[in-house]
Amino acid sequence: MQAIERNGLQLDLENSSSIEKIRLQTSTEVTAVKNADLILVCVKSTDSESVAQDIAPHLLTHAVIVSLQNGVENAMLIARYVKNAVIPAVVYVASEITVPGYVKHHGRGDVVIGAMSSLRPPHSHQTLTDIAELFASAQIAVRISDNVMRELWSKLMINCAFNAISGLSQLTYGKLAERDSIRSTQTDVVKEVIAVAKADGVVLSEPDALHTVANLATAMAGQKSSTAQDMARHKISEIDHLNGFIVRRGYAHGIATPVNQALYALVKLVESTYAESAP
Amino acid sequence: MQAIERNGLQLDLENSSSIEKIRLQTSTEVTAVKNADLILVCVKSTDSESVAQDIAPHLLTHAVIVSLQNGVENAMLIARYVKNAVIPAVVYVASEITVPGYVKHHGRGDVVIGAMSSLRPPHSHQTLTDIAELFASAQIAVRISDNVMRELWSKLMINCAFNAISGLSQLTYGKLAERDSIRSTQTDVVKEVIAVAKADGVVLSEPDALHTVANLATAMAGQKSSTAQDMARHKISEIDHLNGFIVRRGYAHGIATPVNQALYALVKLVESTYAESAP
Repeated sequence: MQAIERNGLQLDLENSSSIEKIRLQTSTEVTAVKNADLILVCVKSTDSESVAQDIAPHLLTHAVIVSLQNGVENAMLIARYVKNAVIPAVVYVASEITVPGYVKHHGRGDVVIGAMSSLRPPHSHQTLTDIAELFASAQIAVRISDNVMRELWSKLMINCAFNAISGLSQLTYGKLAERDSIRSTQTDVVKEVIAVAKADGVVLSEPDALHTVANLATAMAGQKSSTAQDMARHKISEIDHLNGFIVRRGYAHGIATPVNQALYALVKLVESTYAESAP
Repeated sequence: MQAIERNGLQLDLENSSSIEKIRLQTSTEVTAVKNADLILVCVKSTDSESVAQDIAPHLLTHAVIVSLQNGVENAMLIARYVKNAVIPAVVYVASEITVPGYVKHHGRGDVVIGAMSSLRPPHSHQTLTDIAELFASAQIAVRISDNVMRELWSKLMINCAFNAISGLSQLTYGKLAERDSIRSTQTDVVKEVIAVAKADGVVLSEPDALHTVANLATAMAGQKSSTAQDMARHKISEIDHLNGFIVRRGYAHGIATPVNQALYALVKLVESTYAESAP
């Protein structure tokens, strides 16, 4: 936050010859939401509930919350604590924060939003259109989906297939995809996620899913997962909300998820050492 | 070898207040086997075939070969190249080579030997008894088993449950056992190994196997696997002959081994980076 106040948010976009410097007001106080029409929740999934609880008393009645987070539960968790409309968003972007206030962009940057039917109050299609137009005016492509939950699950599946493996090996998606044995394990992960999604009422196509996994390895060949970035800094990752979530939902449905379980257990095991050693 | 020539083989035994210094003749020439009555093969499983091929022309007719190696295939592989009796041995020891010529012992140190019925010439029970007595005279406990293949599979199962996880996390068996999620993954590994062993004609009991896994974590709490030691030195491990072997045999039998596959793929992925970076 201090870096952004001092130098602006520096945005190093792929295919751009210059670095954008964006002046922003920053605050670490939850009361900063009090005049906001639109709130973009970008915290780690581990913090969704506490953030929702903290901002709830300060929100304008008409304020709209968009959850730009990994995992499929966040919008639902946030909606438990606020009366406002909560819109789940799926973010497709390859990027990293190399130094405070400096975002290095490696590819894509498009967003999918949609209505979660189970949320109250039901937000109108107009709200979604307004958000899409606002983002578009800032050159961010937003697509409105009539099945955003399926899109969230599809992103979760991708995260389950790449994040832990990239984290444990500290290697890029491209390096992972070079090895048959890794692709085979990713296929096992995908099959488990599809089975759990189905039990949760979301139908994902296996051929489409495997196609998406193969495509991502090419489209984001140079990218390391957010889990890899967290592990390199000895920060606790979102694994509880990725492979860990699949394990929990699988358990609830009586579906075996041994490969997601193994990846989850390995990341948690490595994270258990962080208190003891600096990166 | 130079260190052993200079200072003797230094043996730092658990529960001993002094370090044993053992003077040995050493050689890197395969012709050194030419007068040997007994040959102890202690190379990594990856080198079994080439070593067998190299020593074959120099062996005395009555020479006996003992394979003190991990994995279940070594004695059989060696027997393809030599006419001599080959005796599989299962070694239970926790130790590490901390510096050249210096062996630090962390626990156990007992050996199981037995006849492999498929090997020619069939070695007599007297040969086994002679070896057991020779080892006993050097304070090494040797048990003769009438089902040494089952013992080898049991050790392999242990290696599959511990080696890759200890290697990927660089943690001890005790640290692994502290986590429910790791024990759950180890149970999945064990079940897959038992299914593959059964298809290979070896019956392992699941309760016994899980008991053995739990016991080892206590008995060798401070130990890191040989795979962990190899990975720390950026050396290629024996994973092809541990979880990798289970994956190959499972594939041959049409048995799914997704968790062994995931652990195997992760270790191979990390090993693929060794050419590029020093430890």
